[in-house]
Amino acid sequence: MSSHSTDEFSLITRFFSDIGKLGESFAEKSPITLGIGDDCAVLQLPVNQELCLSIDTLVSGVHFPEDISSYSLGCRSLAVSLSDLAAMGAEPVAFTLALTLPDSNAEWLKGFSQGLSQVANQYDIRLIGGDTTKGPLTISIQVHGLVPAGKAIKRSGARPGDIICVSGTLGDAGGALDFLHLARASSEQSDSVQYLLGRYFYPQPKVVLGQMLRDVATAAIDISDGLLADYNHIARASGVGGVFYESNIPISNELNLEMGENALSLALSAGDDYELCFCLSESAYLNLKDSAAFKSVRNIGFVTEDLGLRMIGGDGVEHVLSPKGYRHF
Amino acid sequence: MSSHSTDEFSLITRFFSDIGKLGESFAEKSPITLGIGDDCAVLQLPVNQELCLSIDTLVSGVHFPEDISSYSLGCRSLAVSLSDLAAMGAEPVAFTLALTLPDSNAEWLKGFSQGLSQVANQYDIRLIGGDTTKGPLTISIQVHGLVPAGKAIKRSGARPGDIICVSGTLGDAGGALDFLHLARASSEQSDSVQYLLGRYFYPQPKVVLGQMLRDVATAAIDISDGLLADYNHIARASGVGGVFYESNIPISNELNLEMGENALSLALSAGDDYELCFCLSESAYLNLKDSAAFKSVRNIGFVTEDLGLRMIGGDGVEHVLSPKGYRHF
Repeated sequence: MSSHSTDEFSLITRFFSDIGKLGESFAEKSPITLGIGDDCAVLQLPVNQELCLSIDTLVSGVHFPEDISSYSLGCRSLAVSLSDLAAMGAEPVAFTLALTLPDSNAEWLKGFSQGLSQVANQYDIRLIGGDTTKGPLTISIQVHGLVPAGKAIKRSGARPGDIICVSGTLGDAGGALDFLHLARASSEQSDSVQYLLGRYFYPQPKVVLGQMLRDVATAAIDISDGLLADYNHIARASGVGGVFYESNIPISNELNLEMGENALSLALSAGDDYELCFCLSESAYLNLKDSAAFKSVRNIGFVTEDLGLRMIGGDGVEHVLSPKGYRHF
Repeated sequence: MSSHSTDEFSLITRFFSDIGKLGESFAEKSPITLGIGDDCAVLQLPVNQELCLSIDTLVSGVHFPEDISSYSLGCRSLAVSLSDLAAMGAEPVAFTLALTLPDSNAEWLKGFSQGLSQVANQYDIRLIGGDTTKGPLTISIQVHGLVPAGKAIKRSGARPGDIICVSGTLGDAGGALDFLHLARASSEQSDSVQYLLGRYFYPQPKVVLGQMLRDVATAAIDISDGLLADYNHIARASGVGGVFYESNIPISNELNLEMGENALSLALSAGDDYELCFCLSESAYLNLKDSAAFKSVRNIGFVTEDLGLRMIGGDGVEHVLSPKGYRHF
């Protein structure tokens, strides 16, 4: 922590000095040698482990509605970053927070720190440092996690013939944004709209699934920009293409109910779901498909040697897809 | 990198894919297993080394003038963060960049990336990841450096009787800010104003000195908030106080020339110099004081058991100091 006045310093100390905890796997020895309060935090990695790290920024009015509660914002900010650790198969350890705020409002900070704490405790990650500055509301969080050396799941390992899988259901957060943009959410909220809003405000990064995939997935990414755009990152990094089965794209009943014929388009192209998309060999898939870990995992297609993305429709007809989004032909 | 459109992605790739390099000490094996382009970067630490990390945010109009050139901003942003590694005695390895920009202006990005590159190459640090978002101009940089396990210099180790030292001269950047605020810098710039402005826009973090201090300093901090405020962080963390000699506070001829009787106040209380303030035993100081490494280091006082800060004036009279700033009594 640096470059702030004494008053700011007391506020930071008050709300941010004790957020999150380490998981049980670190009971014997903490990798955090030094936390908040010096020029740097210090980490010592266990032998034969590598550190995965990722920074994400959320800007008011761009990445979240300006009237979001600070509690929701705290939850969402950390969850979104944790999703990058999930995509690498990393175990969360520590995070830093760069918080830019128009003013130091104790009530706002309290809600925000409670949101952070909620998610930090759920995913066993500890706040170890940060910087608080005055300016337009912007939150950058960097997360740090551990993987056994050489086991981080990259985007570049997908091979032709691999099965493409996703966790959970897709498009829900996109559906919520549609409601938020239209301000349709403010008055009567049906149960299904409530569900969609929950999916947007409280994403559940697939941290446990990601760690389980370390030994089996050939490639993985988290779905922040939309299934097609994100799978396309895997495809480009791996030098492959992909075919999806339209009828296998996982869509919640709630999204179908609220969005009708737009649900598929949201599931393919809306971001913010923070589910995982990953590839694995057919044999690995067959071994795992009935396991508890794969309960919410769906086989949605396969990796092809041919570049480009295609979809086999419900009618059995194949369509060419654009990674920018699904187009009705 | 995540959550940006394809166009943004190309700009980022164009300007930020190859910034900085590793130092010669990593010639045999790079600690960077995976750099830009996946959900996370991956670091593998050499055996018996710890990772120091620090995040800093600079906001337009708060931490730098709105009309700063993007080149200067790139230089300054990274240099400021590197100063935290210097204060811990860490060797720079890698940094991440969270860049929030109102628009993606290629000319601006080119200058900014050139500034980053300049400093990254000078200090042997490599850009390994980041996030680019749309919004009010804000830059968060997290730096990562290595120290032998247990050797990071904390704020908390100062002991009564230790000598207090600082590197370089103090108050220069504060003097520059004074000119910038008064817009006195725009027309005729004397050589001494040019010097002060250079000290503000192009800080030189004391990375080599910091590493040299690992085995001798009992405490260290970089001077970002002002000497008294920053030494006070050491004093509080160590449970000590301090006495300074007014006549030993290092002030440049340029600052004396431009600021006259305000120079001392700037040297004590203005921030942004990014010099190091550190403590070491008297015997360690006597061993080192004539070495090349200590050429720009000045003994400015000593650590006391009594809490609080005091100053012995040129007239030999002792004054009580406030950490918020020097007051003329």
